[in-house]
Amino acid sequence: MTRADGRNADELRPVTLTRGWTKNPEGSVLVSFGDTRVLCTASVTEGVPRWRKGSGEGWVTAEYAMLPRSTNTRGDRESVKGRIGGRTQEISRLIGRSLRACLDFKALGENSIVLDCDVLQADGGTRTAAITGAYVALADAIAWMGERRILAASPGKVLHRSVSAISVGVIDGEPRLDLPYEEDVRADVDMNVVCTGSGEFVEVQGTGEHDVFDRALLDKLLDLAAAGCAQLAEAQRKALAS
Amino acid sequence: MTRADGRNADELRPVTLTRGWTKNPEGSVLVSFGDTRVLCTASVTEGVPRWRKGSGEGWVTAEYAMLPRSTNTRGDRESVKGRIGGRTQEISRLIGRSLRACLDFKALGENSIVLDCDVLQADGGTRTAAITGAYVALADAIAWMGERRILAASPGKVLHRSVSAISVGVIDGEPRLDLPYEEDVRADVDMNVVCTGSGEFVEVQGTGEHDVFDRALLDKLLDLAAAGCAQLAEAQRKALAS
Amino acid sequence: MTRADGRNADELRPVTLTRGWTKNPEGSVLVSFGDTRVLCTASVTEGVPRWRKGSGEGWVTAEYAMLPRSTNTRGDRESVKGRIGGRTQEISRLIGRSLRACLDFKALGENSIVLDCDVLQADGGTRTAAITGAYVALADAIAWMGERRILAASPGKVLHRSVSAISVGVIDGEPRLDLPYEEDVRADVDMNVVCTGSGEFVEVQGTGEHDVFDRALLDKLLDLAAAGCAQLAEAQRKALAS
Amino acid sequence: MTRADGRNADELRPVTLTRGWTKNPEGSVLVSFGDTRVLCTASVTEGVPRWRKGSGEGWVTAEYAMLPRSTNTRGDRESVKGRIGGRTQEISRLIGRSLRACLDFKALGENSIVLDCDVLQADGGTRTAAITGAYVALADAIAWMGERRILAASPGKVLHRSVSAISVGVIDGEPRLDLPYEEDVRADVDMNVVCTGSGEFVEVQGTGEHDVFDRALLDKLLDLAAAGCAQLAEAQRKALAS
Amino acid sequence: MTRADGRNADELRPVTLTRGWTKNPEGSVLVSFGDTRVLCTASVTEGVPRWRKGSGEGWVTAEYAMLPRSTNTRGDRESVKGRIGGRTQEISRLIGRSLRACLDFKALGENSIVLDCDVLQADGGTRTAAITGAYVALADAIAWMGERRILAASPGKVLHRSVSAISVGVIDGEPRLDLPYEEDVRADVDMNVVCTGSGEFVEVQGTGEHDVFDRALLDKLLDLAAAGCAQLAEAQRKALAS
Amino acid sequence: MTRADGRNADELRPVTLTRGWTKNPEGSVLVSFGDTRVLCTASVTEGVPRWRKGSGEGWVTAEYAMLPRSTNTRGDRESVKGRIGGRTQEISRLIGRSLRACLDFKALGENSIVLDCDVLQADGGTRTAAITGAYVALADAIAWMGERRILAASPGKVLHRSVSAISVGVIDGEPRLDLPYEEDVRADVDMNVVCTGSGEFVEVQGTGEHDVFDRALLDKLLDLAAAGCAQLAEAQRKALAS
Repeated sequence: MTRADGRNADELRPVTLTRGWTKNPEGSVLVSFGDTRVLCTASVTEGVPRWRKGSGEGWVTAEYAMLPRSTNTRGDRESVKGRIGGRTQEISRLIGRSLRACLDFKALGENSIVLDCDVLQADGGTRTAAITGAYVALADAIAWMGERRILAASPGKVLHRSVSAISVGVIDGEPRLDLPYEEDVRADVDMNVVCTGSGEFVEVQGTGEHDVFDRALLDKLLDLAAAGCAQLAEAQRKALAS
Repeated sequence: MTRADGRNADELRPVTLTRGWTKNPEGSVLVSFGDTRVLCTASVTEGVPRWRKGSGEGWVTAEYAMLPRSTNTRGDRESVKGRIGGRTQEISRLIGRSLRACLDFKALGENSIVLDCDVLQADGGTRTAAITGAYVALADAIAWMGERRILAASPGKVLHRSVSAISVGVIDGEPRLDLPYEEDVRADVDMNVVCTGSGEFVEVQGTGEHDVFDRALLDKLLDLAAAGCAQLAEAQRKALAS
Repeated sequence: MTRADGRNADELRPVTLTRGWTKNPEGSVLVSFGDTRVLCTASVTEGVPRWRKGSGEGWVTAEYAMLPRSTNTRGDRESVKGRIGGRTQEISRLIGRSLRACLDFKALGENSIVLDCDVLQADGGTRTAAITGAYVALADAIAWMGERRILAASPGKVLHRSVSAISVGVIDGEPRLDLPYEEDVRADVDMNVVCTGSGEFVEVQGTGEHDVFDRALLDKLLDLAAAGCAQLAEAQRKALAS
Repeated sequence: MTRADGRNADELRPVTLTRGWTKNPEGSVLVSFGDTRVLCTASVTEGVPRWRKGSGEGWVTAEYAMLPRSTNTRGDRESVKGRIGGRTQEISRLIGRSLRACLDFKALGENSIVLDCDVLQADGGTRTAAITGAYVALADAIAWMGERRILAASPGKVLHRSVSAISVGVIDGEPRLDLPYEEDVRADVDMNVVCTGSGEFVEVQGTGEHDVFDRALLDKLLDLAAAGCAQLAEAQRKALAS
Repeated sequence: MTRADGRNADELRPVTLTRGWTKNPEGSVLVSFGDTRVLCTASVTEGVPRWRKGSGEGWVTAEYAMLPRSTNTRGDRESVKGRIGGRTQEISRLIGRSLRACLDFKALGENSIVLDCDVLQADGGTRTAAITGAYVALADAIAWMGERRILAASPGKVLHRSVSAISVGVIDGEPRLDLPYEEDVRADVDMNVVCTGSGEFVEVQGTGEHDVFDRALLDKLLDLAAAGCAQLAEAQRKALAS
Repeated sequence: MTRADGRNADELRPVTLTRGWTKNPEGSVLVSFGDTRVLCTASVTEGVPRWRKGSGEGWVTAEYAMLPRSTNTRGDRESVKGRIGGRTQEISRLIGRSLRACLDFKALGENSIVLDCDVLQADGGTRTAAITGAYVALADAIAWMGERRILAASPGKVLHRSVSAISVGVIDGEPRLDLPYEEDVRADVDMNVVCTGSGEFVEVQGTGEHDVFDRALLDKLLDLAAAGCAQLAEAQRKALAS
């Protein structure tokens, strides 16, 4: 069985990670997974939220959003609606948790970083692209802080792990990696997996959208995702080395 | 190693499912997992949201909330804050998806059911108790509809599956079932699993709260959760038979 | 003329006041007036709102809310609507004023207590049940504070009065005590009265819902309410003595 | 004992009712009770809210608000705060209920009237001035509708009763009529009473702000208020006759 | 060509500026441009917003709003809608900027003034009437502050300039001054101009509502507006001298 | 006097207009004025808002927003704050008015177009870049509609005019064209001008931010802006021709 875009079931879409895409943020990365394009920026501020003051530890949060016409049909702005939808909040929380897993907060010192992930063009996998790109933006921001000596330790100690994320799903009975929109909407099972650069899990979120799934199928999906994340980790390493 | 409440690592807290706990709803169940107590009600209305009109299919949504002092320290009301938090929306969406997996919407006909899950007392596992209790409330509501002949098929066809849910986590390196609050806050890994009565997965959500996890650990957590859900399914059957 | 539930015109519904109904709050009372059931909790925190700091005086507020399906037909959650309705605010304010009439704020010291009154099941008289139950929860919280020596005087000085509340109304020309929902909706005149344990008035709120009323009728309603409150005060004393 | 403004305890402040104060509304009345000045307008629209459609009956609502600097110190605008306070909603609801008591909704036909009561200058008694002025604006709007033949009956049938309202309170132990701001803030008991032109009660709201009150005191306050409302009814008659 | 109200194309409507219209504010002016009536109040408070603390400079803001029935057909209250519309915010910002151009903030000292402009009756030109009236209210407030010695310099140094504003527009090809509502809605071009008392510009906002405009027409409109503002400046001087 | 970026006072920054920058919208243009980069998309939907139904005429609106870190320091998201700021609304309204001046709504037929202008990188002049880019996106959307025969006339009749916009200001006494951020913040006078392709004015908005301005200066600024807009119109023509 071949996929509409000609890929094999276990193949990623082309991935690009463009650093320094905008000039103002301390880290600014345009990530693309095929036609999905997300601008990930990292903004550094001194100090931490009130509940963390005096702890000697830093903090990292994330905010995800889609431009109104990043999608096939235009979605109303959440600023106009006056409230943030559940999906948006869920994804923002997922990105924040995933990136916090990379950091030693003591080493960060009492500094805060906000990761903004704005979807410019959506074609499935926006949250996994966001996590993958945000890691690179975060690395750039940590390096920037290291140069200015505002960390409590070396950048390598602060960011002791990398993370990347990928979606997997079951379409017509077949487990597939990195679903574009047209596969995503008809997947029976849909799973997002966040892994570290050394292959451990940070998050596993699997949902039987249109069907339930047994343990054997779950195992296959996890294998597929782990292999995909390994490739993304390599792409992140290359981007940061250049 | 023994747990603070004397349980074994693979043991559930005492579970109760009290049907008809309040008189107004079509289904009303007070569920308790140990000290966690959630009131789950099912409210039936004829008709469906606009986007589903004319489809011949019904719809089910869920809303989760905590009473302000269900917890150790009082939380501000979301009605007073004027916005619903990300955690609340995330759990409401999880409950809705899980319960929709039980239903044949064609058989339900163009009717809507809202499942309200209000936490009266919180001691860990509120979302899993909510899903487990909401299933029983939903079953009562479907039976009520069957008696009034407002379904498009028999109640058994409408509700073709049961679901229950349980939390598992890793504390001091040990995988444990059904975490109370004091274990939940110190778990390195935290996972919520929703299963059908026949042992398939509906949702798997695992998070490395304080540590990442490898495949072997993930496998143990899934085994533990599946066994726990099987016991909950049995408790649901008994409650509905009485 | 007999009422649908067999009561005399001047008779209360069965009243229960269950202390310690949930474990977390400093005071937690489940009050029932017939089928009306309200969970009243008292939450203590050190310190007072900014405008009262340095005054040496404490503060008490109340928040009333109904579970969405406490009623016959489901009401939308105020958290989902993003705003609190006028009726909810009016009742919250009434409960707060009534309970503040019991307290010596100097003796309370700079401490705050929030009274949450959540209606689990509604059958008329929810605000009067809430006031009656909240008083008992408040008394438990004050006793708890006394034990921990965080009051500026003895508990008896802090809580120098008891309050209870009851509804009265005119149905088919007859003044009646403690209206259930089915009487409430067709009452020509509807009145809520808050009294102290020694029979004085704290609040009198009478409304000609479907008809105006003369002084003679008003006098009868006040007599009926005062007698009802005296019985409730006795029930409170018994509950607190047990 | 004399009051600061030289009045007797049972004396109203000077009352004015200026009709046609602005040109756009169907009824527009500037009412003053001493220094308290409220602009009351009545706006007529054809049709009724959805829940009342097809009933053949009309509807009346009221909205009360204070200009930010109508008071001694500036209050933030509720539009800026993004939510309407409890006091505002409570008063809006009171005005609406009071005015609805004057009307035969069948005779009004399926028409709606909104009564806007905007406080231009506040010196105590704004809600009672608002009710008193809104009645006159309502009468003008009903007359306007009668001239255009958009009522289901004659104006006299539509508006079968007049209402007016006054505050009473206890200052230094003395019951007093029509409290200005400086008395209002120190009153032990504060009561607002709405009466019909023929002396019956529509609303009675008494609050022990700083002290509880017994039946004898309540009786005196009711006498005082009834006498005050009778004078206001006379002022309304004169204003409408001119 | 004559205008509906008999004015020449370059003629203002009758202007009144009534000082001390309400008693509470430090400055309170009822301004009318024909049937347009706006209550402008100036409220003084010590201190400045956080971002300006320690600067030694004061601050001035403005808030504009319309009473719901100031207009021909009733508009919903922005407090009820829970959000402030774009037009309201735009006008509030315009008034604030215009009045800030009159002030030496160092001379004002760390004090804040809020200018509230509430439209009681609208007939075109509400924003220009508001600016013109707010200047007089501001002058009264500055004088009040001078008397109490809470300025960092003399009132004349604080308020070193006057401002007034007028609308101009093109109707049926003819440039006209000070448009009432019926002209405003059919103007091809609409312009609001804010000038100082010595004839310089503070703001120029021209919009081709129904047609574009060339430079020659723009020049004529600016001439007309400058002449109108000169007359308004004279009216302000007279009002403040009386 | 030379500018920091080496430009002459009457020189534009480099302008680019990239069509088809994202694939989903009917028109999608990335516009840059120097370092200012705005994504302008045009989204077509059949039908018009309720108030325009049955008129046979179409409608166009615009929404402007800034990504949180498009600026030097991160701004909070308006969706998170729950309300849209005055500046955002003002600019959205300006863009909408400006683009509506290009269209014959009868020729458009009952179709709606939303223009979203999202600032990816901000360096002064974001609103003028947005208008200039939105015109090109609108032209592409109209052409797209023409191909699908959903217009009531030919595309050339629908879009009978082009518009572009530019900022001008006075820095150190010198009138300058197209201000970058560092000039914008210190400009004494700041003006935004919207012109048609044939040199007429659509909008003129001049503000004395730090100083007032006389007629001679205003004239120079208008000359400068008109010349700038002529160059932008030429750039638009080239972009649409390619």
